[in-house]
Amino acid sequence: MPRYAFKIEYDGGPFAGWQRQADQPSVQGTIEAALARLEPGAHTIAAAGRTDAGVHATAQVAHVDLEKDWDPFRLSEALNYHLRPDPVSILACARVADDFHARFSAQERRYRFRLVQRRAPMTHDRGLVWRVQNALDLEAMREGAAHLVGHHDFTTFRSTMCQSNSPVKTLDEISIEEIAIPHGREYRFHLRARSFLHNQVRSIVGTLERVGAGAWSPARVATALDARDRAACGPVCPPQGLYLCGVGYPDDPFTPPGTS
Amino acid sequence: MPRYAFKIEYDGGPFAGWQRQADQPSVQGTIEAALARLEPGAHTIAAAGRTDAGVHATAQVAHVDLEKDWDPFRLSEALNYHLRPDPVSILACARVADDFHARFSAQERRYRFRLVQRRAPMTHDRGLVWRVQNALDLEAMREGAAHLVGHHDFTTFRSTMCQSNSPVKTLDEISIEEIAIPHGREYRFHLRARSFLHNQVRSIVGTLERVGAGAWSPARVATALDARDRAACGPVCPPQGLYLCGVGYPDDPFTPPGTS
Repeated sequence: MPRYAFKIEYDGGPFAGWQRQADQPSVQGTIEAALARLEPGAHTIAAAGRTDAGVHATAQVAHVDLEKDWDPFRLSEALNYHLRPDPVSILACARVADDFHARFSAQERRYRFRLVQRRAPMTHDRGLVWRVQNALDLEAMREGAAHLVGHHDFTTFRSTMCQSNSPVKTLDEISIEEIAIPHGREYRFHLRARSFLHNQVRSIVGTLERVGAGAWSPARVATALDARDRAACGPVCPPQGLYLCGVGYPDDPFTPPGTS
Repeated sequence: MPRYAFKIEYDGGPFAGWQRQADQPSVQGTIEAALARLEPGAHTIAAAGRTDAGVHATAQVAHVDLEKDWDPFRLSEALNYHLRPDPVSILACARVADDFHARFSAQERRYRFRLVQRRAPMTHDRGLVWRVQNALDLEAMREGAAHLVGHHDFTTFRSTMCQSNSPVKTLDEISIEEIAIPHGREYRFHLRARSFLHNQVRSIVGTLERVGAGAWSPARVATALDARDRAACGPVCPPQGLYLCGVGYPDDPFTPPGTS
């Protein structure tokens, strides 16, 4: 059976998360239902990152085995047709080798978090950012974030529900970009690692927001990390500002040969 | 009675337009209802631009007379509280002179139109852009747009319902910006004039999209303008990519004295 990889964009708002659930809408279930319109029967797709309820993606990657030998472009067009009107879009599709696995072949995940500081409620970006009203100190947040980069035991920054075997991970990057917007400021957090623990990004951003607000000193982030204690973490921030925005593979399945 | 000006952002999606209507939700009606929570009784607000159904604003301006001597910041906060959960936000509020009129004092209106070209349907930006699937030629659109800048009879580019006394207007600017987005391109049209005719921006963008697609030559835009005939216009594009994004006054009411 030929294997296909998809690059997927979605608005996490209406979904209980990526993972298929019996009684609630999920991104996985929505795509599997669209696949069943193309090839009858049950389909199981595997994704690089199982995003939580309300979390978005601009470049999730998943793979599936199909019976038919599909032209990848036609497959993506047919899937997009059947995905309507759900806010899930196939951006790219590629035929991949049988040993490609969207989750296990991935070498890197990139997440973005959009935090907006302004007094007025959001309108166009509602559900797409986390808005706070207090001013934020960019340099303090950067100083706090610097303590987290590298190889650490992230017990403080993972959900108690996390199923990962080890809390030890290498965080390759946290950078914070400040963008002036009318009547406010947007802070974009860029995080990159081979893999992340459950709720790790939201635990980190929620903690760094407290640093930005002046409620935490930057040094307290190091103390919290060293504590290896979930109770030492700052508040976990809401999901609607979080985007899975890239997955890295040894060979990018979506880059035609010779163009990378 | 003290007069106040508001700078207002809204998502036009859920509204039948700016203007109050008896049986449909409107932006004006929504703000007037919030004002009635602050000062009982009927309020009438006047806006710089009466946007159509589905059209957005990032900086609409409106004014109202109130009984009480409000601190402008507290007034904006109280209004935002009562506007929830509607996607209408007061970005700024200022006390203005009795002869300030949001519509009649305005010397300039700025509109932005967001046109996205990509195969995959929109997710996060759904309802916020007009998406087309065909490729667009930026230089051809710019060449077509250049014919429209200046002082012209815009009969071709106004709705037959337009109530303006004269179809003659001066269009000070149409510029088109091309932004690379993953798996597509976004074209931002920036239009600036003292005032616009009904459906003028959507008639112009709809026509220029035909030029970009290659269905119209750039020169045909000049021919259409010269015809002074509504039937010569290209298709009017949908409202969801259109934003009223600025209104100019002799003295900006939202700039504190000494800072401009």
